[in-house]
Order: sequence, then C-alpha cells, then structure tokens
Amino acid sequence: MIEYRGGRAKMALITLTTDFGLTDGNVGVMKGVIWRFAPQAHIADISHLVPPQNIRAAAFVLGRAVPYFPPGTIHVVVVDPGVGTSRRPLAARLGQHYLVGPDNGVVTVLLEKAEQRGVIAEFVQLDRPEFWLPDVSHVFHGRDIFAPVAGHLAAGVPLENIGTAIHDPLRLDLPKPEKTPQGWRGQVIYIDHFGNVATDITSEHLAGQEIKSVNVRQATVDGMVSTFGERPPGTLVSLFGSTGNLLVCEVNGSAAGRLDVKIGDVVEIVLK
Amino acid sequence: MIEYRGGRAKMALITLTTDFGLTDGNVGVMKGVIWRFAPQAHIADISHLVPPQNIRAAAFVLGRAVPYFPPGTIHVVVVDPGVGTSRRPLAARLGQHYLVGPDNGVVTVLLEKAEQRGVIAEFVQLDRPEFWLPDVSHVFHGRDIFAPVAGHLAAGVPLENIGTAIHDPLRLDLPKPEKTPQGWRGQVIYIDHFGNVATDITSEHLAGQEIKSVNVRQATVDGMVSTFGERPPGTLVSLFGSTGNLLVCEVNGSAAGRLDVKIGDVVEIVLK
Amino acid sequence: MIEYRGGRAKMALITLTTDFGLTDGNVGVMKGVIWRFAPQAHIADISHLVPPQNIRAAAFVLGRAVPYFPPGTIHVVVVDPGVGTSRRPLAARLGQHYLVGPDNGVVTVLLEKAEQRGVIAEFVQLDRPEFWLPDVSHVFHGRDIFAPVAGHLAAGVPLENIGTAIHDPLRLDLPKPEKTPQGWRGQVIYIDHFGNVATDITSEHLAGQEIKSVNVRQATVDGMVSTFGERPPGTLVSLFGSTGNLLVCEVNGSAAGRLDVKIGDVVEIVLK
Repeated sequence: MIEYRGGRAKMALITLTTDFGLTDGNVGVMKGVIWRFAPQAHIADISHLVPPQNIRAAAFVLGRAVPYFPPGTIHVVVVDPGVGTSRRPLAARLGQHYLVGPDNGVVTVLLEKAEQRGVIAEFVQLDRPEFWLPDVSHVFHGRDIFAPVAGHLAAGVPLENIGTAIHDPLRLDLPKPEKTPQGWRGQVIYIDHFGNVATDITSEHLAGQEIKSVNVRQATVDGMVSTFGERPPGTLVSLFGSTGNLLVCEVNGSAAGRLDVKIGDVVEIVLK
Repeated sequence: MIEYRGGRAKMALITLTTDFGLTDGNVGVMKGVIWRFAPQAHIADISHLVPPQNIRAAAFVLGRAVPYFPPGTIHVVVVDPGVGTSRRPLAARLGQHYLVGPDNGVVTVLLEKAEQRGVIAEFVQLDRPEFWLPDVSHVFHGRDIFAPVAGHLAAGVPLENIGTAIHDPLRLDLPKPEKTPQGWRGQVIYIDHFGNVATDITSEHLAGQEIKSVNVRQATVDGMVSTFGERPPGTLVSLFGSTGNLLVCEVNGSAAGRLDVKIGDVVEIVLK
Repeated sequence: MIEYRGGRAKMALITLTTDFGLTDGNVGVMKGVIWRFAPQAHIADISHLVPPQNIRAAAFVLGRAVPYFPPGTIHVVVVDPGVGTSRRPLAARLGQHYLVGPDNGVVTVLLEKAEQRGVIAEFVQLDRPEFWLPDVSHVFHGRDIFAPVAGHLAAGVPLENIGTAIHDPLRLDLPKPEKTPQGWRGQVIYIDHFGNVATDITSEHLAGQEIKSVNVRQATVDGMVSTFGERPPGTLVSLFGSTGNLLVCEVNGSAAGRLDVKIGDVVEIVLK
C-alpha cells in the first residue's frame, strides 16, 4: 500500500467485481463495510454484471482490468456459487496487486500471467475472524468477510497477518488454442457491450504469421485490419483488441448479434 | 459527522438511492452538486434501479443497506412521485445515520427498527432555501434541494440548522406477517438480482419453531437449510437471508423465474 | 484546478461519460488509469449507457450535467465511432469546465451555450504522447489517451502544456426549432428513464407566449402545467423540465411508451 501514502492521507484504492447486479444495494453495502475500516478509500466498480455464477467471465474481465490499476490497488472479486460451503475465502498478492475473494479459480488468468513473468504470488486463507464482521451470514460473504478484509488491507494490515499462507489456490482449466494444419483453432471467450466477439487467440499466437481468414459460425472474415476505421460501417472485420486478443467485430455494429455467436463457439484461423 | 474527521481531512460519506436509472446522467448531476458544497465527500451508489415511484421497494433496499455504513454517513433517497407537490422535503437523523429526501414513508423500515431499539430519531422539514440551489425546479428536487442539503450536512452544518423540527414523518402501512393455525402467513416483499424471493417473515418470527414446509405459488419447499451448499444446483430451498428474512431460492438458479413469483404473493409457513 | 486545492489535499473531480456499458469493466479500467496519475481524484460516472456511437445523445446528456459540477471539474467523454481513424483527440476548457475526448462534436451543446454567454473556450489537440500510456491501442483511446490526459490535468498539468492549440473543433449540425404560423415546430431530442419526452423547444423560445396545445404523434396535450402534482396519475401533461426544455410526460407513467414516441419525432406547439 505504501505507494499511496502521500503526506498525511493514504490513498487506498479498491475495486469491486461481482455478479450482484446494480438493483439490490448489495454493492453499496460492501462499500459501506469497507469504509468502516478504511474511510479514506477510493472504490471503483469494475463490473457487477458478471453473468450469475460465471467464474470464467469474471476471470476474463479481471484479467483485462487489473493490470491498468496502480500498484497497491486491492481488487475484491465475489462471484461465489459456493458461498456457505467449505470453499475457502482467500486474499492474495500478485506482484503489486492485491486480490480478495472466494477460492474459486477467478484468479487463474492473472496468476498464469504472473507466473509467465516470474512475478511473486502469495495466497492466504482467510481464517482469522477478527478481521471480519462479527456476524457472518451463510449467504453474503462479500459483505461479512471480503469487504472487511479489504478494508483492513487498505488500512495497512499486512497480507501475512490477515490469514494463513496456502500454496494451492484453485485454478480453472481454461481451454487453450491449438495449432491446426491450416492455422489455429480457438474459441469465443467473451462478448462485449458492443457485440464485439473476443477469442482466446492472441497476437502472441499469431506473431509473424499472416492471416488469410478468420472463421466463426457462418462467417468468413478475410485477413485482419489494424483499426475499425479501415472499413465502412457494417463491415465484419477481425483485429487485435486492446489487450491483444483477436476480435471479430462489425464496424459500428454488433458482430455477436449479426452472427448469433455464443461464448464457447469455435474460431478457426486460416494462415496464408 | 465527527467520526470522520481524521487529521485535517474530514471523511464525509454519502450514499444515493433513487429510481433515476443509470442512463440519463441525473445521478452524476447530484454528485456534482454535492461536491460543490463538500468536495471531499466519498459518494457511493446504493441503487438507482428502484422500480419507478416504488417507495416500498426503496424502503426495503434502504433498510437492508443503511446499518452497514459507518456512523455519520448521509443517505440521500429520492424516489419521489410527489415532486413539485406539497409533500415536504426532509432530513433526519436515526441514531448515527442521516437521511435526506422527500417525506414519502421511505424511512418506515429504518424508523421502526430504530424505535424497537430505542434509538433517537430526529426529523427536520427542509424549509431554508439558503441551503438549496438558487433556482429550484418543479421536477428535480434531488438536484435542487436534496443534493445541496446533503452537501451542507457533509460540510458540517448541524441537522437542526438545516430545517425546522417536525415529529410526524409519513409512514408506510407495511403489512405484517400473521399467525395462522398451521404456522405463519406472510408475503413476498422483494425479488433480488438472482431471482431469490424475500419474504417479510424473519428469523425473529420463527425463533424456536421448527418448519415443516414453506409454500409459495405452486411450490412446497420442505424444511429449511442453512446454506445453498447443502443442496445440489437446481433445488428449491428456503433459508434465512443475510438480514434475517426468510428466502425461497433455487440453488445457483432463479426461484422467482421458475415459480413466476411476484411481490405481494402470499407465503404460508407450516410448522411441525 | 486551483479551486479544489484545499490545505494539503487537492480535490480533483473527474466525470466519465461513455457508451461502454457497465458489464465489461472498461469504465473501471479508465478509473485505474486516472488514479495512476491522480490517486486523490474523486471520479463520478455521468452515464455509460449512451446509445452506442450516438454522439448527439451524449451531447445532450453532457449539456445538462456539466453546468452542475464545481468549477475545475474534468469531464471525460468517450463516444468514439472514429477510434483508430484520423479524428483528433482533444482537451478543452469552456469557462471553468474541462473536457477531454475525441473531436466528434459532442461538445456542441456546451460550446453553443458558452458562446452565447461570452465564456472563453480553448481547445488543444492531444499530440504529446508523453501524457498518454506508453502503448496506445487502435481500439481503446479512452484507456490509452483520454484517461491519462485527464489524470495529468487533475494532477495539475496546464491545458496548454498537454497539447497544441486548435480553433476548429468539430460541431454537430443540431436542428433548431422553427417559428410556424400557429406557434413553434421542434423535435424530440431525448427520452429519459421514466419515459419523459424532451423536446428542443425551451422556455426561452416560449417566453411571454401562452400555449394552447402541444402536439406529438397522435396526442394533443392542452396547455402546460408547472408540476406533475397538478394532474392525477396517468394524465399526459406538458411542462418545462429541470433545464428548461419543454417535456411531454405522463404523471407517474411513461409518455414515450404510451405514445410510441421516438427521438426525431416532430413536436408542434400551438399558441393561443
């Protein structure tokens, strides 16, 4: 946290990612609990519209967002189909980013990147109720465990004091793109607000290779563009997104709507 | 407010609850006005998706959320079908929580709890335009009256200076669960983002009693569980929610969708 | 910014308006980037549900919201169908309000008001990559250019240092109401969350004139009211909205839903 101690005021930054939606007030409640312990914290919402219980979507959203936050930011992630079961509550440090939430694999994307880059990852199981609310419900650990833990971290409690070290966080078994005789086969992993279709094939997979076409559902998209502006509105294009994933998009339109694409659909890349 | 004066900076915390939606910018406008008077305030959204003009839903959301915020937090609540009529603008203190908004009964749930616990409640009618924006429209008192009043409270103006004391805030006539020969009869009072069905029957009503079944619409749910994890996905269960209300839920699914439940539907509890 | 330097802490205020939606985390990412450069900044969302690529709707939302924010607030507006093309990135000062975003005309409503009131407007083209993120994508300038520029402005970099002065920002060709033999002809320019229908005819157009009726689609609304409370629920009324535009509304209902009104529909005012 020390990066945000500036003069007298400590600038603690916290983000929230959940599947709670925006209607019921549960996100606000988590902010209230955080502010009990860290009233100076700035809190940003990443998303509360993760599809219910969809840990994989949360992992993808988180993997794209976290690297852009300042060092020391605390990211609370509560997509928790196992609330009230024996799944462990965790806190973690991946390099300079902190994470707090249930042990459900949501950290997988970030953890794989951290490991590729040799970044230190530390995990603790949250087993010290003195850092939680006094009454812990069976159904809302975001409020009762994760928000107070984030508040305590923001107030300066060291990670190693807030739980007991563990070394086996749950990981999702994320599919990986495969090499094919013609090029690469991957899948659709996300569809965004504009209907842009994100695949798990990245600029790293395709480095130095020239693309003949991208095939998804009934569509064959010829080659790639660098930017939407190279084609007129209504054209299907493929290009690399802002975090390096290959996208299929309609210029100023919705490729997902036009092609009726779903998450998990196969994407075939044909190389020249 | 004094709880949040720390060193030089006063950590004023404000929440907003409205039926304004998230599209038109009106919530942002209220934050802008608050910051005119209290630029240091942290502002959290509780909900802006209260069903239009639905004071009862706002009262329920507020009743669940407010107790989790730190003492001194100022809660602005604008669900205001009577804007521009003679309904009074109010500010209140319930114990250590402040509320600002139209006198429409939205405070009922919190006020009943405060009275049960002997907590002091003070109300003032907002009748001092020096604490408002200079031009007050007929249609947006959230911006013109309630946001500036919240900003002045956050800046340290005492409640008793900001209006004239009153003792008769409007109260909603909320239905209460009734004892029946078999057990209890209540009703559905809220349906959340996950499709969980909340009733007005609480753990207090059922203390020391053993439940045979919970009946709502065509469904009979046997007994109760402590947590979702006790049953497989897709099972209907009843359990106590995070604030003590009896819920009917589908594990990892939507009970409201499955049973076509609506707010106001009857819920029958049969005791053993 | 100097208005928000209070004691040791600078109270930088930033708003965000986009068509990014609330699901994907892109709004959160922009906040993370802003906080890299200005960790003390308070950030408010105005709207992220601007209809995709609809610059005119963004201009209207912005025109209503900006005047209510404190002097020195920095407004980031990214509705950017031209991302990755040669459209210029801009920052501007209109009186005491700062704006940052693509040069797409979104500033038109505010700029016209500023010019009517003789307020100084300054524009700079953002052509100094030292104020951007090191890697600029072709598809997310909100993250890579506009958020870091806003962060630098919030941290105290003067507008004139952050880009090169220009004098020809793009303007939208907004339709203007016309005088007719019977009164005025305008059009529907916005429909809000409640289904209230906003027109481009304002209290200034109608000053000193008495209205016989307002005609839109199949409806004829007699005269005007000052406030919703003058008529029973379910009645169609016309009144001036909170920023002076003539509205057609259903008391406690949705006029847009009832009349099937669309943006661009003609509105005829008949004077007495």
